[in-house]
Amino acid sequence: MTFEQKLRQSVSESRSVLCVGLDPLRKRIPVAVKKNLESSDEIVLQFLKDVVDATKQYCCAYKPNLAFFEALGVYGLDVFKRIVDYIPNNKIIIADAKRGDIGHTAESYKKAYFDNFNVDAITLSPFMGFETLESFLDDDSKAIYVLTLTSNEGAKDFLLKPFEGHDRMSDYIAKHLETLNTKFPGHAGMVIGATKTDILTEVIQKHTQASLLIPGIGAQGGSVDDLANALSSHQGIPIINSSRSIIYAGEGKDWKMDVEKAAVTLQSKLKTITGKYV
Amino acid sequence: MTFEQKLRQSVSESRSVLCVGLDPLRKRIPVAVKKNLESSDEIVLQFLKDVVDATKQYCCAYKPNLAFFEALGVYGLDVFKRIVDYIPNNKIIIADAKRGDIGHTAESYKKAYFDNFNVDAITLSPFMGFETLESFLDDDSKAIYVLTLTSNEGAKDFLLKPFEGHDRMSDYIAKHLETLNTKFPGHAGMVIGATKTDILTEVIQKHTQASLLIPGIGAQGGSVDDLANALSSHQGIPIINSSRSIIYAGEGKDWKMDVEKAAVTLQSKLKTITGKYV
Repeated sequence: MTFEQKLRQSVSESRSVLCVGLDPLRKRIPVAVKKNLESSDEIVLQFLKDVVDATKQYCCAYKPNLAFFEALGVYGLDVFKRIVDYIPNNKIIIADAKRGDIGHTAESYKKAYFDNFNVDAITLSPFMGFETLESFLDDDSKAIYVLTLTSNEGAKDFLLKPFEGHDRMSDYIAKHLETLNTKFPGHAGMVIGATKTDILTEVIQKHTQASLLIPGIGAQGGSVDDLANALSSHQGIPIINSSRSIIYAGEGKDWKMDVEKAAVTLQSKLKTITGKYV
Repeated sequence: MTFEQKLRQSVSESRSVLCVGLDPLRKRIPVAVKKNLESSDEIVLQFLKDVVDATKQYCCAYKPNLAFFEALGVYGLDVFKRIVDYIPNNKIIIADAKRGDIGHTAESYKKAYFDNFNVDAITLSPFMGFETLESFLDDDSKAIYVLTLTSNEGAKDFLLKPFEGHDRMSDYIAKHLETLNTKFPGHAGMVIGATKTDILTEVIQKHTQASLLIPGIGAQGGSVDDLANALSSHQGIPIINSSRSIIYAGEGKDWKMDVEKAAVTLQSKLKTITGKYV
């Protein structure tokens, strides 16, 4: 099954384009999880398993962010692997790694995430050149999502500035990804932040076939209605991510129900968008 | 002790600006290492310990590249931590991670590498904006090396292109790092590849105070004489990295002697450069 087929099936089965971002911070894990578990790695793993159980009906994908696993220390990648293995097989898993390197180094990252940890997709930075993306593209069961327009203030330093005859560097990257997609259809997607609506709309509407990973909904404040408008004639499947506003939705004894409610609410808000892809 | 003091002392003690890059690839580890060791993680660790033993007299720094450790699988960061702990305390350790992210994610990378693994420096990508660098700069015993001019072909896609009124994006980044260095002297260095001599010379000579991490000598083909000319009036300390041409210098029974010879030879070739900083 190609990545694109698996993604389409996962969106259909869950009736959702929602992606749940897994950013585990020890200090934000509800106290109720911590009972009866001694090792803090086990606590993090149990928290993430509970989050997956509470949300899996309502999302098509999970996006574990490597920084939070590396911060766990020497067994961080073990926790990463165990949660990746726990997530149901029919869900898309995107390693949010934002790696970008050359030659043997790129090959090693590919080996780590696609071969060993066996995730479906990885986020990449194109900064060292487009050659850094190529080694991730020879397997059509896998995909890449490339930083194109990010939702942070600092986007003004590079991505929002004019570049190479384009109004913004984002357009330059999006155009290259479109070319890559003619070679590897559906496998070279864009990361497009949801907080800069006017620019997001422009980039998305210029590249209607592009696969999209859209963070910035929820805690970062992006509007779902604006996003639905921007996507009104989009053909590539968008995956819409929320991390903190779902996984830290509850603190008390019933935190898992709060997490489930947050996922249900967001799935429902995204209904208009989802409807076009099922 | 500040990072800059530790670096200066390490260069003086070893009489060397050489940095040994640790890029462990299982298939290139000499057969002699593999005897009597069953787990492949132990083989990789033993290989790296032997490399450190064979080279520590001749270098000021080590640069383990995270990609090669992540590719080892779930215990990759454990191997990373164990070799970081094994390297003598008076050497500079640079985690070659090329991370670049925002907010909590940047904080988590900082926690991972500066607090938990306790390396002296990290390589970063500024692509998501200069804000991504700031959280790494509040501890003056640590430093960052920021991708400014890389030695690969793909540098033509971004770093070598005109940007923001500069002839090259590299100049734009170098200028920002110079500003950062007035706030955090010596702690915001540049990664400058050694293979594009004319451009390297220009960037280096415009920023004579900058700390430098220079890959591209050795297997990648950069010339030491050209580099010595470029650095003739440079005041910031340059760390000059070679990975494969040292660590894979030998294959047979006497491979450790070959590694030592490769390090001695490069230390000696770099003598003119080193002489200015001891």
